[in-house]
Amino acid sequence: MTEWLPTLQTETPQEGYDLAVKLARTAIKMTQPDAETRENLRPVYSEDADSLIASSQVVATHFATVAAANGYWK
Amino acid sequence: MTEWLPTLQTETPQEGYDLAVKLARTAIKMTQPDAETRENLRPVYSEDADSLIASSQVVATHFATVAAANGYWK
Amino acid sequence: MTEWLPTLQTETPQEGYDLAVKLARTAIKMTQPDAETRENLRPVYSEDADSLIASSQVVATHFATVAAANGYWK
Amino acid sequence: MTEWLPTLQTETPQEGYDLAVKLARTAIKMTQPDAETRENLRPVYSEDADSLIASSQVVATHFATVAAANGYWK
Amino acid sequence: MTEWLPTLQTETPQEGYDLAVKLARTAIKMTQPDAETRENLRPVYSEDADSLIASSQVVATHFATVAAANGYWK
Amino acid sequence: MTEWLPTLQTETPQEGYDLAVKLARTAIKMTQPDAETRENLRPVYSEDADSLIASSQVVATHFATVAAANGYWK
Repeated sequence: MTEWLPTLQTETPQEGYDLAVKLARTAIKMTQPDAETRENLRPVYSEDADSLIASSQVVATHFATVAAANGYWK
Repeated sequence: MTEWLPTLQTETPQEGYDLAVKLARTAIKMTQPDAETRENLRPVYSEDADSLIASSQVVATHFATVAAANGYWK
Repeated sequence: MTEWLPTLQTETPQEGYDLAVKLARTAIKMTQPDAETRENLRPVYSEDADSLIASSQVVATHFATVAAANGYWK
Repeated sequence: MTEWLPTLQTETPQEGYDLAVKLARTAIKMTQPDAETRENLRPVYSEDADSLIASSQVVATHFATVAAANGYWK
Repeated sequence: MTEWLPTLQTETPQEGYDLAVKLARTAIKMTQPDAETRENLRPVYSEDADSLIASSQVVATHFATVAAANGYWK
Repeated sequence: MTEWLPTLQTETPQEGYDLAVKLARTAIKMTQPDAETRENLRPVYSEDADSLIASSQVVATHFATVAAANGYWK
């Protein structure tokens, strides 16, 4: 895998949130490397409330890490 | 996406809680960008006890981050 | 919504635990604002072991935050 | 509810673990106050692998809090 | 229950991981004290992907605690 | 089990992420030691959106620990 995570530092909280989303999605790519299979799953989880909530939970966990890494952008 | 998260700092714990709710919902918007689809899912999860509890879990995780970012408003 | 969360500080661990329960329930109220609908869901989740465990998980996450906010009442 | 949580301090890690179990169970009692209903649920969750794992997750979250409160008993 | 958790300190990260596994399993033993029932559940969860993932989540939560208790073995 | 976790220190955030994935998978190996059974489960969870999300959650929890252990690679 090419370099995709050079740093946890971001300029703003919002960029930190975007990074959290990326961190959440990367684990899925590593477990299911086939892009087509992932694409086929998209309509399943993106239209299922519980899957969306579970995805948001993963983002929340990563956002906690990124926020701590950035001293909460204070 | 336009700027929606300029800071994690809030005046009060209650505003911090509201921010946690916003942080939880934004990941869902990013995964399911279509507003109509999200609207159609609302009656599903808002009337399902387990979905409501899972949503509350995401808010709890974000609230921990926001509270830490604000030094617990002490 | 009227003021419901003026502070995370509590006198005792037990009051902190009660606050964690309140924090867990508030997210549910915000997602399902209709009191009657929530009342109808009560027999569902309060008699379902998995729902009860999931509720307890949300309380645990909030209790961690409240405990940290209070310096663990040491 | 009578006093049940005077302190998060314990003598040993093991007593801290027992306190984490108590913290996990108390939220369930508060959501389902009827002892008989809880007793009826016991055979359901105590013989279901996923329920047992979920219960253990709640204990893990509380144990993190109790351990931090005790400076990890170092 | 006899003494099973004298300390959270371990020599190495790997021993810390083993302790996290033990912490995860103990809550299950405390909720389902009958060894035979637990043994009967083993084929259920050890051959179910979602149960295995959930078990791994509990270990992850405990490993965070054990790692912090050991100053990350730095 | 041979030595597999000598340290939580990594050179880069990306290596830290890879370590988090390894930490997530090891618990599964310890609960289901049979490689063939695990291999048979792979098509199940790698093509199921909810399993993939749950896996990503475990990685997120471990990544938080690894990131803290490395001072967030600052």
